[in-house]
Amino acid sequence: MVKTNPGHFFEDFRLGQVIKHATPRTITAGINVLYTALYGSRFAVQSSDPFAQAIGYRRAPIDDLAVFHIVFGKTVPDISLNAVANLGYAECRFLAPVYPGETLSAQSEIIGLKENSNRKTGIVYVRSTGFRQDGARVLDYVRWVMVRKRDEAAPAPGDHVPKLAAALAPDALGAACPPLDGGAYDVALAGSPYRWDAYAAGEKIDHVDGMTVEEAEHQMATRLYQNTARVHFNQFTEGKGRFGRRLIYGGHVISLARALSFNGLANAFHIAAINGGRHVAPLFAGDTVFAWSEVLGKAPLPGRSDVGALRLRTIATKDRPCADFPARLGEDYDPAVILDLDYWVLMPI
Amino acid sequence: MVKTNPGHFFEDFRLGQVIKHATPRTITAGINVLYTALYGSRFAVQSSDPFAQAIGYRRAPIDDLAVFHIVFGKTVPDISLNAVANLGYAECRFLAPVYPGETLSAQSEIIGLKENSNRKTGIVYVRSTGFRQDGARVLDYVRWVMVRKRDEAAPAPGDHVPKLAAALAPDALGAACPPLDGGAYDVALAGSPYRWDAYAAGEKIDHVDGMTVEEAEHQMATRLYQNTARVHFNQFTEGKGRFGRRLIYGGHVISLARALSFNGLANAFHIAAINGGRHVAPLFAGDTVFAWSEVLGKAPLPGRSDVGALRLRTIATKDRPCADFPARLGEDYDPAVILDLDYWVLMPI
Amino acid sequence: MVKTNPGHFFEDFRLGQVIKHATPRTITAGINVLYTALYGSRFAVQSSDPFAQAIGYRRAPIDDLAVFHIVFGKTVPDISLNAVANLGYAECRFLAPVYPGETLSAQSEIIGLKENSNRKTGIVYVRSTGFRQDGARVLDYVRWVMVRKRDEAAPAPGDHVPKLAAALAPDALGAACPPLDGGAYDVALAGSPYRWDAYAAGEKIDHVDGMTVEEAEHQMATRLYQNTARVHFNQFTEGKGRFGRRLIYGGHVISLARALSFNGLANAFHIAAINGGRHVAPLFAGDTVFAWSEVLGKAPLPGRSDVGALRLRTIATKDRPCADFPARLGEDYDPAVILDLDYWVLMPI
Repeated sequence: MVKTNPGHFFEDFRLGQVIKHATPRTITAGINVLYTALYGSRFAVQSSDPFAQAIGYRRAPIDDLAVFHIVFGKTVPDISLNAVANLGYAECRFLAPVYPGETLSAQSEIIGLKENSNRKTGIVYVRSTGFRQDGARVLDYVRWVMVRKRDEAAPAPGDHVPKLAAALAPDALGAACPPLDGGAYDVALAGSPYRWDAYAAGEKIDHVDGMTVEEAEHQMATRLYQNTARVHFNQFTEGKGRFGRRLIYGGHVISLARALSFNGLANAFHIAAINGGRHVAPLFAGDTVFAWSEVLGKAPLPGRSDVGALRLRTIATKDRPCADFPARLGEDYDPAVILDLDYWVLMPI
Repeated sequence: MVKTNPGHFFEDFRLGQVIKHATPRTITAGINVLYTALYGSRFAVQSSDPFAQAIGYRRAPIDDLAVFHIVFGKTVPDISLNAVANLGYAECRFLAPVYPGETLSAQSEIIGLKENSNRKTGIVYVRSTGFRQDGARVLDYVRWVMVRKRDEAAPAPGDHVPKLAAALAPDALGAACPPLDGGAYDVALAGSPYRWDAYAAGEKIDHVDGMTVEEAEHQMATRLYQNTARVHFNQFTEGKGRFGRRLIYGGHVISLARALSFNGLANAFHIAAINGGRHVAPLFAGDTVFAWSEVLGKAPLPGRSDVGALRLRTIATKDRPCADFPARLGEDYDPAVILDLDYWVLMPI
Repeated sequence: MVKTNPGHFFEDFRLGQVIKHATPRTITAGINVLYTALYGSRFAVQSSDPFAQAIGYRRAPIDDLAVFHIVFGKTVPDISLNAVANLGYAECRFLAPVYPGETLSAQSEIIGLKENSNRKTGIVYVRSTGFRQDGARVLDYVRWVMVRKRDEAAPAPGDHVPKLAAALAPDALGAACPPLDGGAYDVALAGSPYRWDAYAAGEKIDHVDGMTVEEAEHQMATRLYQNTARVHFNQFTEGKGRFGRRLIYGGHVISLARALSFNGLANAFHIAAINGGRHVAPLFAGDTVFAWSEVLGKAPLPGRSDVGALRLRTIATKDRPCADFPARLGEDYDPAVILDLDYWVLMPI
């Protein structure tokens, strides 16, 4: 009886299957401390209890992406231990603020299965949900991953590709943002005079600064999230692999880009949703990450006059400043691009 | 008057001497956060307050090995500042759970002294105890270290080798584990269906995963424990020494092996005792640690039907996967072995 | 409309201008945890709630230098983003203990401006103050930095060099130290028998130990302080610059020297003031920091018999032990010296 976790292979999944993931996690204020040390995040709402309370939060909430990474980490042993590639995200919604002292757990439902024509792998579509200890949902999102089959001869366990929204609609945003007192939102303390009104669709912002990543940093981050994907930690094995290096967790890149985006988007205090994201190329230790953003669109939230939503596309690069907004080069990406993320943020009006 | 601490030399110790160590430490929840980031530990009891409370803890306790390392660290300036080698551990018992908010201090008693025949060094046997702020003992253990003499001509300060148990008896286990409600122990949240009954003496488990260690990680860990042993931090001096490198604190290896052992022993939520341990070879930054375990024995705890004990031997290696369970090679160890640890864990029945 | 922060250039400042800095920060106990992991600090007052409470603190306060770095970090985007060099500190006073749960914010007043004769840069003198959420001041200090002009032709915005004290007087010390019960101060737990009486002016102390710094460590520290100075994080750009390396934040060196100084100054539990400091040379990752201190003077505090002040000069070096107390070499410094710090500490009498 082998007691180690072999992970699921493609033929092990079933459409509609629900998987309860291991290791619930009590989120303490120390997570915000370490998250700040890893990325240098400076959004006032997540940094200061009095600032957060003045505008309507119970206290400073945990950074949205820390919540995402912690929920994501729990899904890895069951969903992607045998994954070849993480292909995409969709319909990621933040549904409640997470405060220190609360406990998160996660479960996933298999919502799509599609064998690849080589019959060696298949694509698994999964909707993962993060729960608070009282059962309230704090986050859900869809991702799809290419997973190896244990046995090529095994029949495909299903054949269904779910319909996923290209972007969440404005009425799906804002559940994790309490009603805010915009008058109490102090733009000097927040670090920028530019509220929602100041941004226009089509506007591009170079976030200017660069951040070099060290092995110890991304390993500590990924373990902080209790993410066990092997490619991030094991130089002995990865040294013999395709890249010869440990791969940095894609979510680490998202958090770096988000922290860099403070310079130009300081009042975008909350990520309300992630419409989609692509890890265009891998990041390795020693590389320096830069980022820029484009405002894809603006939307008021139905029934709310306190906050408005910006739909952003944030592109991260490695070893390439973004003053000229690198993105596509014809059919392909600029070779320096590592992340292309489409998401909604909220800003005070 | 030299005010820096020269440490004790062999001839400074006396049999029966009691040393109160410096720097009491209030243990906050942030220690669990950083510990998780350093090792990737995933045991549900230490991760989640509701999980821990459901089965009978007051809240999620601090990781057992973090408690060990913090107590151990306090002893270093008084016991092993002039040590040549840390030779062994015995009779290490965890006596009470440690919760965030509690404060630990430590003292040690000299229980054995044996000069080496070269008269340049001697072996000091010491029983160290960790105390809670209310005086309750949370941990005690014996270690023996080879310590330099200041003056070779000094007479030996004693000549006594204490009798130490090869292993703690089952009735010495369990003091740090409150009575558990096994029915409330959720194996899905814990990460494995295998309770105590599922394990058999003689069973061997490869923990599969590997973890590469960085200088920043082991330095941060060792400072977190306020352990001041110089070999871990000072490349200027160590670069001229025997290895040319900073040595990684042996306890860091124990914590890595323990975290890796989750894969195969997810329900071994508590270390009740350490019978003995040997740091077979040094670990350096850049090396990748693997581990495997053998079940040396099983024992019920007298008067308890909630938890049972497994006696484990966990072997850690560097740069060598453990699928074939490397250990002894004739008289010697496999050259990849770095740790051979004999300890008791508790699991729900 | 460029929304990123361009920072202030020399001609943008005005004498008497008051700048409110961004990102208030709630200080949680996790900051002490990470600070300990970064530097290995062992002062009992900051480590243990019961120790601190026994002598008169409400609980263990946050390390003085962590408070300094957090306030300092907030000033960077407004004061020194376009700085060529940080030239000096003066009149730094710690005015109240900072406890976990309190929130810090910062503002600065421009108190001097002096254009350089090349008209390309000017010196900005600024008094920065850290505030608690209730408006109480916890820290203030003066620093002066050389800042680039945006436009060489711009007229100088002022011409005033403030008079700064060479050292703070004893009656300016002690505001951040509550009345202590010296009898309750346990020197065994504190780690040294030497109280204030044991030190003499002119005494020199080699702190013996060395600490090698890694890129991940200084980056995490500097981000912990939300300090955004670009030279610390961006290898892509710095690799093309004067040193070819990321520069380590000068405050990181101060904290390392302070942690090393425990060995010889274990009862110097509180930094009451910094009279001045000079970062003599840069520190880079891979270098090993050593330190020694000289007692420049002793002073009782007016009206207090619980604590006395020592004025210390602490010198830090890189890759050079300090047994022979390296400092000046004729007109210059010993080439290994990186820091020359003049400050007041308090010790129990």
